Amino acid sequence: MTTGARRRMGVEQRREQLIAVALELFGRRSPESVSIDDIATAAGISRPLVYHYFAGKPDLYQAALRRAADELTALFAEPCEGTPGERLSLLTSRFFDFAEAHGAGLSALRRATAAERLLEEVRHTAYRRLLDRLEIPAPSARLEVALRSWLSQLETTALLWLDGRHIPRQELELQLVQGFAALTAVSAAHDDGMAALLRDLLAKEPQDTPFGRLAARLAPLAIG
Amino acid sequence: MTTGARRRMGVEQRREQLIAVALELFGRRSPESVSIDDIATAAGISRPLVYHYFAGKPDLYQAALRRAADELTALFAEPCEGTPGERLSLLTSRFFDFAEAHGAGLSALRRATAAERLLEEVRHTAYRRLLDRLEIPAPSARLEVALRSWLSQLETTALLWLDGRHIPRQELELQLVQGFAALTAVSAAHDDGMAALLRDLLAKEPQDTPFGRLAARLAPLAIG
Repeated sequence: MTTGARRRMGVEQRREQLIAVALELFGRRSPESVSIDDIATAAGISRPLVYHYFAGKPDLYQAALRRAADELTALFAEPCEGTPGERLSLLTSRFFDFAEAHGAGLSALRRATAAERLLEEVRHTAYRRLLDRLEIPAPSARLEVALRSWLSQLETTALLWLDGRHIPRQELELQLVQGFAALTAVSAAHDDGMAALLRDLLAKEPQDTPFGRLAARLAPLAIG
Repeated sequence: MTTGARRRMGVEQRREQLIAVALELFGRRSPESVSIDDIATAAGISRPLVYHYFAGKPDLYQAALRRAADELTALFAEPCEGTPGERLSLLTSRFFDFAEAHGAGLSALRRATAAERLLEEVRHTAYRRLLDRLEIPAPSARLEVALRSWLSQLETTALLWLDGRHIPRQELELQLVQGFAALTAVSAAHDDGMAALLRDLLAKEPQDTPFGRLAARLAPLAIG
């Protein structure tokens, strides 16, 4: 029994290790160019042993992508508190944390055809959570475009940051949050629903935060 | 000779037709789920005849992706004139034209693993052309992040617009161009290079354009 329990635990740990190794390799190189041999070598085990844990490369690849998607989804599930600016800052910062810890997984998700649905699922979750955080029950089509385009900026910026880390991430995070205020103000000039959101953000955000200061200075452009 | 010339022209036209049909199908459905039979049916020819023009599905798929990438690249190659705002407007508008005419191709490019390099090539071309148009010879790392994140917004917004067309594209195009001014102003508050770009844009842009008005009102936030 003891041996069995230990062996089962070993199986889980080994699977975890192989998933982590696969995610790293699939993130750095195209999935077609990564072989089971490469994964075995990187994990320090034999090729037949890899097949003991996974039926083949597609199986391991799916497990690796599922892992990356689950981690991204978990990230957005974090409870939220504070002002709109604090909520946006926290979400932005967690996304950079994820990129820092699992950049390979994020790159793999963006590059894999098989990951298309997973990535759509993650992006949809991110979008729903952003609506929750900003307490928006029924977004208009214009608001959806604004929020999703901001999320694509977040994704692109985090991946560019990761590639060389030439700019301090705190600076990029602050710019993203302030950029949110700027985009909201620009959209608010075109649309009443966006103007209502901007007023709501201003009402909830103290004017002495970076987000509040910028939103307050931009608001006259949009809502007079 | 005459028959041969006509036949060769027929071959080219048939190839063109098959590429267009394939691009449409690959854009709407996952490439795995599209068969040579589907393509033959959509083109109104027999399955064996498809193999007369293309070696197989991978060959046709590559040709379709290459076509989408070439069209996108050509789009950004258009000569440019006018103020910074006019140049940004023209580029934005052409991108929406492309999305309108070839949305399937754009979706196919974004979804295909095999297209990763092609899409990187297109994005890189778009980025270089944007630098040309704004007359920026040597971009800093911060400027690169700002420009590339704006391009990702353009891509995301055009695809969202295409999915339902709930918002007039002229409105989205104007918001993207104004959003560029807003993002530049936000970044300029953090970085001297971005502040120099903003000053340069203001010097070149008349203050009575939508871009100029917004940039002029935002500039004090960043450059005093």
